[in-house]
Amino acid sequence: MAGIRLARRLQLAQPRLGSYPRLFSSTTSIMSQSYRVERDTFGELQVPSDRYWGAQTQRSLQNFDIGGPTERLPPPLIKAFGVLKKAASVVNVSYGMDPKIGKAIQQAADEVISGKLIDHFPLVVFQTGSGTQSNMNVNEVISNRAIEILGGELGSKKPVHPNDHVNMSQSSNDTFPTAMHVAAVVELNHNLIPALTNLRDVLAEKAKAFENIIKIGRTHLQDATPLTLGQEFSGYVQQLTNGIARVQGVLPRLSLLAQGGTAVGTGLNTKKGFDVKVAAEISKITGLDFKTAPNKFEALASHDALVEAHGALNVVAVSLMKIANDIRFLGSGPRCGIGELSLPENEPGSSIMPGKVNPTQCEAMTMVAAQVMGNQVAVSVGGSNGHFELNVFKPVIAKNVLQSIRLLSDASRSFTKNCVVGIQANEKRISQLLNESLMLATILNKTLGYDNVAKCAKKAHKEGTTLKEATVALGFLTPEEFDEKVRPELMLYPDEE
Amino acid sequence: MAGIRLARRLQLAQPRLGSYPRLFSSTTSIMSQSYRVERDTFGELQVPSDRYWGAQTQRSLQNFDIGGPTERLPPPLIKAFGVLKKAASVVNVSYGMDPKIGKAIQQAADEVISGKLIDHFPLVVFQTGSGTQSNMNVNEVISNRAIEILGGELGSKKPVHPNDHVNMSQSSNDTFPTAMHVAAVVELNHNLIPALTNLRDVLAEKAKAFENIIKIGRTHLQDATPLTLGQEFSGYVQQLTNGIARVQGVLPRLSLLAQGGTAVGTGLNTKKGFDVKVAAEISKITGLDFKTAPNKFEALASHDALVEAHGALNVVAVSLMKIANDIRFLGSGPRCGIGELSLPENEPGSSIMPGKVNPTQCEAMTMVAAQVMGNQVAVSVGGSNGHFELNVFKPVIAKNVLQSIRLLSDASRSFTKNCVVGIQANEKRISQLLNESLMLATILNKTLGYDNVAKCAKKAHKEGTTLKEATVALGFLTPEEFDEKVRPELMLYPDEE
Amino acid sequence: MAGIRLARRLQLAQPRLGSYPRLFSSTTSIMSQSYRVERDTFGELQVPSDRYWGAQTQRSLQNFDIGGPTERLPPPLIKAFGVLKKAASVVNVSYGMDPKIGKAIQQAADEVISGKLIDHFPLVVFQTGSGTQSNMNVNEVISNRAIEILGGELGSKKPVHPNDHVNMSQSSNDTFPTAMHVAAVVELNHNLIPALTNLRDVLAEKAKAFENIIKIGRTHLQDATPLTLGQEFSGYVQQLTNGIARVQGVLPRLSLLAQGGTAVGTGLNTKKGFDVKVAAEISKITGLDFKTAPNKFEALASHDALVEAHGALNVVAVSLMKIANDIRFLGSGPRCGIGELSLPENEPGSSIMPGKVNPTQCEAMTMVAAQVMGNQVAVSVGGSNGHFELNVFKPVIAKNVLQSIRLLSDASRSFTKNCVVGIQANEKRISQLLNESLMLATILNKTLGYDNVAKCAKKAHKEGTTLKEATVALGFLTPEEFDEKVRPELMLYPDEE
Amino acid sequence: MAGIRLARRLQLAQPRLGSYPRLFSSTTSIMSQSYRVERDTFGELQVPSDRYWGAQTQRSLQNFDIGGPTERLPPPLIKAFGVLKKAASVVNVSYGMDPKIGKAIQQAADEVISGKLIDHFPLVVFQTGSGTQSNMNVNEVISNRAIEILGGELGSKKPVHPNDHVNMSQSSNDTFPTAMHVAAVVELNHNLIPALTNLRDVLAEKAKAFENIIKIGRTHLQDATPLTLGQEFSGYVQQLTNGIARVQGVLPRLSLLAQGGTAVGTGLNTKKGFDVKVAAEISKITGLDFKTAPNKFEALASHDALVEAHGALNVVAVSLMKIANDIRFLGSGPRCGIGELSLPENEPGSSIMPGKVNPTQCEAMTMVAAQVMGNQVAVSVGGSNGHFELNVFKPVIAKNVLQSIRLLSDASRSFTKNCVVGIQANEKRISQLLNESLMLATILNKTLGYDNVAKCAKKAHKEGTTLKEATVALGFLTPEEFDEKVRPELMLYPDEE
Repeated sequence: MAGIRLARRLQLAQPRLGSYPRLFSSTTSIMSQSYRVERDTFGELQVPSDRYWGAQTQRSLQNFDIGGPTERLPPPLIKAFGVLKKAASVVNVSYGMDPKIGKAIQQAADEVISGKLIDHFPLVVFQTGSGTQSNMNVNEVISNRAIEILGGELGSKKPVHPNDHVNMSQSSNDTFPTAMHVAAVVELNHNLIPALTNLRDVLAEKAKAFENIIKIGRTHLQDATPLTLGQEFSGYVQQLTNGIARVQGVLPRLSLLAQGGTAVGTGLNTKKGFDVKVAAEISKITGLDFKTAPNKFEALASHDALVEAHGALNVVAVSLMKIANDIRFLGSGPRCGIGELSLPENEPGSSIMPGKVNPTQCEAMTMVAAQVMGNQVAVSVGGSNGHFELNVFKPVIAKNVLQSIRLLSDASRSFTKNCVVGIQANEKRISQLLNESLMLATILNKTLGYDNVAKCAKKAHKEGTTLKEATVALGFLTPEEFDEKVRPELMLYPDEE
Repeated sequence: MAGIRLARRLQLAQPRLGSYPRLFSSTTSIMSQSYRVERDTFGELQVPSDRYWGAQTQRSLQNFDIGGPTERLPPPLIKAFGVLKKAASVVNVSYGMDPKIGKAIQQAADEVISGKLIDHFPLVVFQTGSGTQSNMNVNEVISNRAIEILGGELGSKKPVHPNDHVNMSQSSNDTFPTAMHVAAVVELNHNLIPALTNLRDVLAEKAKAFENIIKIGRTHLQDATPLTLGQEFSGYVQQLTNGIARVQGVLPRLSLLAQGGTAVGTGLNTKKGFDVKVAAEISKITGLDFKTAPNKFEALASHDALVEAHGALNVVAVSLMKIANDIRFLGSGPRCGIGELSLPENEPGSSIMPGKVNPTQCEAMTMVAAQVMGNQVAVSVGGSNGHFELNVFKPVIAKNVLQSIRLLSDASRSFTKNCVVGIQANEKRISQLLNESLMLATILNKTLGYDNVAKCAKKAHKEGTTLKEATVALGFLTPEEFDEKVRPELMLYPDEE
Repeated sequence: MAGIRLARRLQLAQPRLGSYPRLFSSTTSIMSQSYRVERDTFGELQVPSDRYWGAQTQRSLQNFDIGGPTERLPPPLIKAFGVLKKAASVVNVSYGMDPKIGKAIQQAADEVISGKLIDHFPLVVFQTGSGTQSNMNVNEVISNRAIEILGGELGSKKPVHPNDHVNMSQSSNDTFPTAMHVAAVVELNHNLIPALTNLRDVLAEKAKAFENIIKIGRTHLQDATPLTLGQEFSGYVQQLTNGIARVQGVLPRLSLLAQGGTAVGTGLNTKKGFDVKVAAEISKITGLDFKTAPNKFEALASHDALVEAHGALNVVAVSLMKIANDIRFLGSGPRCGIGELSLPENEPGSSIMPGKVNPTQCEAMTMVAAQVMGNQVAVSVGGSNGHFELNVFKPVIAKNVLQSIRLLSDASRSFTKNCVVGIQANEKRISQLLNESLMLATILNKTLGYDNVAKCAKKAHKEGTTLKEATVALGFLTPEEFDEKVRPELMLYPDEE
Repeated sequence: MAGIRLARRLQLAQPRLGSYPRLFSSTTSIMSQSYRVERDTFGELQVPSDRYWGAQTQRSLQNFDIGGPTERLPPPLIKAFGVLKKAASVVNVSYGMDPKIGKAIQQAADEVISGKLIDHFPLVVFQTGSGTQSNMNVNEVISNRAIEILGGELGSKKPVHPNDHVNMSQSSNDTFPTAMHVAAVVELNHNLIPALTNLRDVLAEKAKAFENIIKIGRTHLQDATPLTLGQEFSGYVQQLTNGIARVQGVLPRLSLLAQGGTAVGTGLNTKKGFDVKVAAEISKITGLDFKTAPNKFEALASHDALVEAHGALNVVAVSLMKIANDIRFLGSGPRCGIGELSLPENEPGSSIMPGKVNPTQCEAMTMVAAQVMGNQVAVSVGGSNGHFELNVFKPVIAKNVLQSIRLLSDASRSFTKNCVVGIQANEKRISQLLNESLMLATILNKTLGYDNVAKCAKKAHKEGTTLKEATVALGFLTPEEFDEKVRPELMLYPDEE
């Protein structure tokens, strides 16, 4: 990174702390020692000399001191901007932009994609609702880095102008939604879907391994008719299989790109065909299938596709909450809970109760689910409040969608690796509970009728006896008949026709 | 109440009122005068003699005095139960049930489907979370009605037993989710999709009619480059086209039925193949394509498919909020707002400001959107809290999904008929605003460069002059050059290559 | 329908049903046979002759066919309108309105308050966002009923004019929010607070009754140190005590009334002091303390006080979800769950599993909680979307707040009566679980140190032995020392200093 | 920071980036070069030698690779832990802990409070739901730093043991909720309330400055009767005054601390009076009034107080959404919107439309509001899902509450400074709109009656004339009478009695 000393990035990356008298809050201080001057239509501004960004970025940084570094736009969005700027530059060269400039832009864009310039993107989510300054941040960084590559002077806007070259044929209003879609599609494909698939597959292995373990079923939390532990896990597998399909189902609309709509959707100041070519180029760079949006007015003014995508994430969260809850309840104990499963012991569980081990991966997962269910509302509120030609809740929508994807992906991986893989069935406990149950009675419905069977179960329950004892005592069956008829292994499937 | 004869009110249909001292609250009174005795495994109960329901329904009615008649299970769910019971009876006959009993059940079920027995389904949403008593309500009503058809005595359970015949091979745990899916699929197909399609088509007609009206664009609520009013409306058309596709996209998973899983998903007490046959029979009755769920454990223990379906409804709500907001803002005025559109005057607008007309259809629509966005959370919370073999938030999930479908459908029809159809463009106003705007300057970017154009626009803004005057004063263009270059009709599309 | 005479159903009260071909949906039909003519500034309209409402109500009924009877404005709101109209009339007489007219209005208003005119208020929530037509509905009904009382002709607007007399000095924009506040305050005071207080008191009785039953504690669902069942229930008592305080905490701002602001908050067309006097009169009628709002602009344009109130309801829902979940998990079993509590058996639990009894009251309660958590979003979305001088999400806000109050109240009563009162401790089971636990080890921390105690607990867990055996085997304590130190009754409180 | 080299903290502080082939995702790499060994009951672990944390922290870091650095627990929570550990140590010394150890703990805790050890707290939100590992992280950091202060060896646990000394008389289950409450109370007091108060005061100045500017009112977005711009702003002032009161209203319950409950609420392993003394000590350190919670079972098992607190934040968000929306709509234009206000120009508004200036501060504010409305759901879902003696959604609740506080605080400051202070009224535009309006007609209601006035307004509207022309043409008033009666300045207040 010739010419720029990257020291002191700690100041920017550090969460807002606090001095004592003003106990917990304070302002971020940026203490770079040397500056250069950058300018925009509003005038001149000092910019840290070790940063590629320009005046508009600096201005936004000062005007939006909201939330600090943890609220920065997520890296996948910045990288998607890199992809987009590279693609646009390729297409612009094809329309006549100086190839030397184009090549420098592409090289700089590649560095954005690689992530190594991430510290040059300091802007937070809570800025302009169109993300204009973040588009300019990308334009400025790529322009300055390209200028540097070409041996020019940072801030001179020559020979690579942030607006006239890097942003050529583009507007914030079409680049930002394009980057949102690209980032989401990439993250869903490369992060969430593999993570969910892996979790599903490991659950499927468990379902297979547990296929012969017969256990008591529970409905309303109450004892019910039996099933196998494998059948129980097969439900989770199905939930995830469906979840993956749901996520895949949002990709077609999410893969439609706003690029080419420019300021209001008409495509003013761009060329006919630019939209199609950029989408093709983005597909080439990412290896994923993108298309230009059939209606650019919709693509700028609404973010329904992202609200839809988050709807799928919300279902995945709902599914994972159910699965993680089941697993921790089935693993509850060790002595005073259900105790049918043993979960891996990953860390000491209590700072006061020695020897306690907790279902912590399930807890992390359910907290992720709670967050995603909240993010759903943030995305929906943002998505519903667009006006006229532009929705100006873009950054907050992008942030929530990308956070949900990341959290679900990471948590699924962690849950798989640190919990599901190591789940073991406590067969002794499972068998003991099954045999104590009264609900095996259900199989007698066809023999004795519902009302009579109810009498047996109630009698056993009230008197603390076994179902067999009660049934025999009531004279409905002999002990031998009971044993022949009430066999859990006969209760796992429908009758043969 | 002299002069007005009040038709006799059905006591059960009446919202909970209040006597004065206990100002606004009171208890529902059921004042039917004669009763018959019904019994279940808990004992005997008095049931109004003019009702078909039995002991379990009556017990639930007494045990769950929550919310009153407005909180009853929605009629489409009751009707779906009718469909299901009819289908099950057809299949049960094929497995050997007495055809005479089957036929009586089917006739009674047809009456449930027709809606004419709706007053026999008094149970509220906030009951057992499996909807068990509502399944029994259906069983009891159909059984008693079938007994009546066959000349038997109500409450005798002979010759048609609610459990042994009407509920044969079924459990509440598989019937209730089946009815939820059937109801949702039917309502989406027959209610929401046609309503959205009609709204979309009428918006498309408007987009066509407005295709030559050039207007100012607005981004960030600020003046932007122009577009046609037709282009603006085309964005709404696209939103609805996508919304319809989103709703259709949830149908495949929603069309998978739990029936055949019985109590815990194993299919105990039913026959192999029962599930497939019931789904086929339901398809036949409804004319819609249903299939048996590939995994019954998932189908009982989770309602992800309904959470997913509501996610699509949530996007539709978000889209409609945007569209309705735009239309009312564009129609704001008549003198002190934007005033580009005239909305139909449907009613007097103010009890104090004579002559005021308000965008009331837009208001109803946005209130519906708010409700649906809330319902999304209710459904997600319910969906996430299933445990083990059963989710016990079934009725509240069903209610919210069906309410959202109904409200979106009704509101779309009302909005179409009472607002969109009658929208007119105020071309004079639109033209006046367009010509005052400074944003036409954008077209000069390529001629003068961004920074120079910014100077012109800023000068005009500060001095209150036209863009042309400012541009000429700054010496960038002659008046003739300006007129030649700055033409809104050139700003509606990308440049030709 | 031989054998059963169906009482004649009031067509308006009937949920929307469906004829077969258009399977589940249809339009409401209003089949009153005779009509009279009413008129407003838009023209003439036919109104059912057995209804007091006038032209504006009829127009709204036709223009907003959204949701049907179950979506009507809730009765407490209509009654609050009665209170308001009565109060306004008293004040208007004090300002010079003809007392004869005033008295007739008051008599009619009293009938509205009593609930006996409820069928004359057919309008749904999803109408004008200001509720204008519902204010007019009240004006029309009271006017016509007052005309009738005075011997005039319905629809003649003489001698009691709906606008000039019943609505005198008022606007929909101040009456509707006033009615919202009055209804909410009355319902909170007379419905929710008593219901929560009763539940709290019954839980407190249980806490007292269970104060000597020592049981295993559970954190992370895992066995933890012991507490008494009474202590566990005391947590629920505290949650409800706080919940009641939270609800009471919103009353001061909710008791501030918009009345007197008229159309935009300025009080145009009303008299100085009208606002204060109306609030005083409303206080007199209701016996509750209302004040005029200090700023009428805020009171019309925002509904923050209702959003705040629903926030308190949301906390109550969250608390009740926790309590109901605990109770059903503690009552899970009867043989294969935790089984520490026995819940009352209120109804047969399964249509297929005879003898099954489910925690249905807990399920109803948690479904209510899910609904309230959803309503919170609907209210917040509505509350956030006001513009300029008016929030036009009034009816949907009112509906959700009042529904949440009603559901929480009803469910609390039902839960108290049908569940909590009858909860019994299974002392044998509780004792058995306690003695098997390893977490009693915690008391040894101070004697042996955390790390050593952890060793004992882990050894016992791995080997399936008791804690005592493991501790002795590891040589940390003699059996006698163990018995002396490890006594659950010593673990229920902090050490004496 | 003797003995520890703080280099390489970049790796930890840096957001997760991505290498190209796995396009946007990658794993965090921790590349510290030297390590020391730490141990817990699970065994030994390598810990970066320049970090104070110990084995349990390291284990959590490895087991919960979820979300990366931006998802770390928020600094105010870490600082609150510092406050708590200091307070506990003071009290423990009073109960007999070695004062030398106590003093070292207090010095280390002060460093935690100061924020300078923030990089030693790497754990993320999505970990154990009790925050156990974060409590241990604090214990380990303070223990090691105290060991260092006392000249011992890091990782030796001597002479200051993380459990036996730093965590003395405490459990994660009471420390974490205590820290949550302390952090929230401090942040509300020192951050949010001052920020809201300042915004309120600046709005109040504007209300004062605008008190004589008469403008058209708008209800339903439609022209309505006039008010002053000052009156309009006074509504915002009232909203904020109420918002501040709402936030203050949650402080009493939020100031109740769980400390002293230890593992399950009984206070086992702590001393009688410890709870009261710790609360007093925390009050002393923070200068804010804290009390011990009256019921520790509630304080561990539920987080209702935080759900309640977020409810207040939700109302503030709803208020700010309304205010920011109004301001941007009133400032819309400059030529084709409402244009009554001029907002400060803070940055260039468009990368393609030169000269465009956008209401970006309003946009940031409304995005914050959307986020807070989403966080409300995350907090409620988390709060509702506690079980038995512990709620295990603590970190996600804490994170969302603290994020909402921070965002609302920062955004309020930014909005005040960068927008509200600089708002100017466009008096010319305001006056022009007022005079064109038809709604001034309302003042004639009492002279001409509602129906006649409606005729005038409708006629003017239809014919595009002024209200005066229409009224005169209809013969209701002479021009002189009209001018005398229809004066906006008479329409701003109720009539004198």
